[in-house]
Amino acid sequence: MAVNFDNLTLHTDAYELSMMQTYFQQGLQNRHSVFEVYFRKMPFGNGFAIFAGLEHVINYINNIKFTDDDIDFLRKDGNYSEDFLSYLKNFHFTGTIRSAVEGDLVFNNEPIMQVEGNVCECQLVETAILNIVNYQTLIATKAARIRLACGDDSLMEFGSRRAQETSAAFWGARATYIGGFDATSNVLAGKAFNIPVSGTHAHSLVEFFQDDYLAFKAYAESHYNCVFLVDTFDTLKSGVPNAIKVAKEMGDKINFAGVRIDSGDMAYLSKRVREMLDEAGFPNAKIVASNDLDEKTITSLKMQDAKIDVWGIGTKLITAFDQPALGAVYKMVSVENDEGKMIDTIKLSNNAEKVSTPGKKQVWRITEKKDGKSEGDYITFSDEDPRKQDSLYMFHPQFTYINKTLNDFDAKPLLQTIFKDGKLVYNQPSLSEIKDFSTKALSSLWPEYKRELNPQEYPVDLSLNCWNNKMNIIKNVHEKIKNRKGEF
Amino acid sequence: MAVNFDNLTLHTDAYELSMMQTYFQQGLQNRHSVFEVYFRKMPFGNGFAIFAGLEHVINYINNIKFTDDDIDFLRKDGNYSEDFLSYLKNFHFTGTIRSAVEGDLVFNNEPIMQVEGNVCECQLVETAILNIVNYQTLIATKAARIRLACGDDSLMEFGSRRAQETSAAFWGARATYIGGFDATSNVLAGKAFNIPVSGTHAHSLVEFFQDDYLAFKAYAESHYNCVFLVDTFDTLKSGVPNAIKVAKEMGDKINFAGVRIDSGDMAYLSKRVREMLDEAGFPNAKIVASNDLDEKTITSLKMQDAKIDVWGIGTKLITAFDQPALGAVYKMVSVENDEGKMIDTIKLSNNAEKVSTPGKKQVWRITEKKDGKSEGDYITFSDEDPRKQDSLYMFHPQFTYINKTLNDFDAKPLLQTIFKDGKLVYNQPSLSEIKDFSTKALSSLWPEYKRELNPQEYPVDLSLNCWNNKMNIIKNVHEKIKNRKGEF
Repeated sequence: MAVNFDNLTLHTDAYELSMMQTYFQQGLQNRHSVFEVYFRKMPFGNGFAIFAGLEHVINYINNIKFTDDDIDFLRKDGNYSEDFLSYLKNFHFTGTIRSAVEGDLVFNNEPIMQVEGNVCECQLVETAILNIVNYQTLIATKAARIRLACGDDSLMEFGSRRAQETSAAFWGARATYIGGFDATSNVLAGKAFNIPVSGTHAHSLVEFFQDDYLAFKAYAESHYNCVFLVDTFDTLKSGVPNAIKVAKEMGDKINFAGVRIDSGDMAYLSKRVREMLDEAGFPNAKIVASNDLDEKTITSLKMQDAKIDVWGIGTKLITAFDQPALGAVYKMVSVENDEGKMIDTIKLSNNAEKVSTPGKKQVWRITEKKDGKSEGDYITFSDEDPRKQDSLYMFHPQFTYINKTLNDFDAKPLLQTIFKDGKLVYNQPSLSEIKDFSTKALSSLWPEYKRELNPQEYPVDLSLNCWNNKMNIIKNVHEKIKNRKGEF
Repeated sequence: MAVNFDNLTLHTDAYELSMMQTYFQQGLQNRHSVFEVYFRKMPFGNGFAIFAGLEHVINYINNIKFTDDDIDFLRKDGNYSEDFLSYLKNFHFTGTIRSAVEGDLVFNNEPIMQVEGNVCECQLVETAILNIVNYQTLIATKAARIRLACGDDSLMEFGSRRAQETSAAFWGARATYIGGFDATSNVLAGKAFNIPVSGTHAHSLVEFFQDDYLAFKAYAESHYNCVFLVDTFDTLKSGVPNAIKVAKEMGDKINFAGVRIDSGDMAYLSKRVREMLDEAGFPNAKIVASNDLDEKTITSLKMQDAKIDVWGIGTKLITAFDQPALGAVYKMVSVENDEGKMIDTIKLSNNAEKVSTPGKKQVWRITEKKDGKSEGDYITFSDEDPRKQDSLYMFHPQFTYINKTLNDFDAKPLLQTIFKDGKLVYNQPSLSEIKDFSTKALSSLWPEYKRELNPQEYPVDLSLNCWNNKMNIIKNVHEKIKNRKGEF
């Protein structure tokens, strides 16, 4: 079963195609529309999220094309008309995509990506965009949490074997690098994205030789940089003493970079191992820890003064174990009506937080001029520009009594144009540029937004125009429903 | 960044390559070895797991080849010698793989896959095999739990947008079908695997028309089978009445298959909607529910007598939300020593359950002759055959006082030969055959193993030979460590 994962055109929910056929049959396929991607709740209860996934989205969009084989399959499916299939055969993406750039901070209830174009193309790309952005943003954010927990320690992504299938391992490794990791164990991701690759040996090497000493010695004879895994049989009684023995025997022929502990009480073992290494004259040998770690266990180990220098993080990171889905949605916010006029659209819900915000929008990152620190995000219609205002009135969209007026502020637009009328117009930065950008973006946040537990809620406010428009539309829909009740 | 996902040779942890180089440099690369895949804990606290992932593993193994580009990358990495790189250039997989077949029941602490070959090839494939089998087995198992919760109701997989990147959506859809789902929304998976594809329309269709009636009408004019999504504005006051209105107007021109509810109180709404549909003369129109559902919410809704006929399951299924990693490991169990003799190997741990079981093994599914019902799984060395025994003594490997002796039993081997000396020798069944096989396998289990909460623990026992061998090896390792203590 060979599938070309470069062409993901059919990687879409069937209902996208059903809706496209509806529009096509009604002659509405060229109606202009705007959809926005946003998530409703901060992942992990974190105070910020790190946007990722754009590179894969760009690949995806660039390769959209229904092959003859795809058309044949849809024909056999039986739900599609021949004229619609001809339309698909000639389909290509001609829309405009605006997006947060990778590594930037994003928050709940603000558009992080916007797709504008005819209603058919906007609909087709929903599934793949959400699939990609949901996962990669989730993982970059999880990585950033772990980075904050471990300070400047080295951080290695070791999750491939526990990732949810192959592309999660691959793109996930990249997302963790954006979020603050230093290296990955995944060679394919290292090659594709130029991420430093790291890893020495597993328990099986020691099992092969039936002996720590023989295994470490063999490894040392074929590698300069050596980190020995010391817990195959007994960390303190066999692993570490044999690692030291080999390091002493090999002398300058190797760089005894350290030892890795993968089981047992990390707080206790790391302290004892540190003493053993120091006593043996290897104060620069590092201690690497791995074993179902995450930001919580790292914080706990640091509080116990564990002597760990390097963290290898797998399962809990690459699956975002404590919240394995971001839950971003893709909602129509504006559409062309019968008279060719764009009208704003809404999805209502019994749950107030789930009501979408109508209108094509921009997000502005508001900072204080004096220190560059974040004051919050300010959502406007795309044709509003807070930079032209002398003062900015920001208020909480649900608890409107929480408000402030800023006078000396900077405003930077979050959404950048990536595709313009189907053409890629965005110059993709290198991965290391993305990583640096992310570090810088985070430095603009007050520490209160960055703490692991119960961070302060970052303000994501609507402009007065956006807010009034939303309230009016809700009112109108309610009235319309009330007035039509007699019909049934 | 185009990556050929058919060739996943570099989709491996760096330490696999480092170990391969160690063996190669020591002239040990042709040493014969056996590795086994197993997981230690049942996922979701379930009483059984459904094995999946073999088809992707077969694809992966069949395509292993280091390209020139791969070799160039490894050369630039700087950690690999030229002679080792030449070895990789000519590398191909020549090993033997035995595995549970897809859809079969598997349990914790038993080998579900076994890789036998030279130590280098066995090491290389660890990461990808675990990555694939861990995820797909997890998802097939989650799907089976949901299937058991909803009885014979229709089950649709709707998770693509929330899956952890693209291949999880794709292979995940297949795994849910194996586990008991009836259809997927993912068109690519439907095409690739011949899974029924399902889906009608989203909220955006209603937003487009600003009106339930107009949207449903447009949809009905271009599709025969219609399921209308009724909760965009107001389920009971607008969605359902307009769905009924359109159904009445269209008459025989459409099959009014039902309505979908995606928000709100499903128990209450489904009962009211059922009444409305029945009163309007549509007793055969189904009610589809979707909204972060899983086996727990389904069970709860059923207990409340909710009138739901079809379940659309997304996030909680495709990410295995309550336990997003299976945690299967890959351990060396036997290796050729200097004298060319195979010796059994072990990985110790302070935690008794984490100690691996040495030796190349087979798993036998033991059933009672009289009713075909499961008595447990019985792990032997690969050259033991319980079918030759008149009676079988089964005992719990930790609590050995729990034991029984069977006289009238059948024993079926779990692990089948998939690759023999690098050649695929297994005839892959069709996906529908796999699905049927899985249903049949489950029917051999007592209901006590299948309940959602706190199922009875299924016996996974070791043969006396396996058990004695393990205990002896543990003793020997401990003595060796004790005796060598003086050296340091």
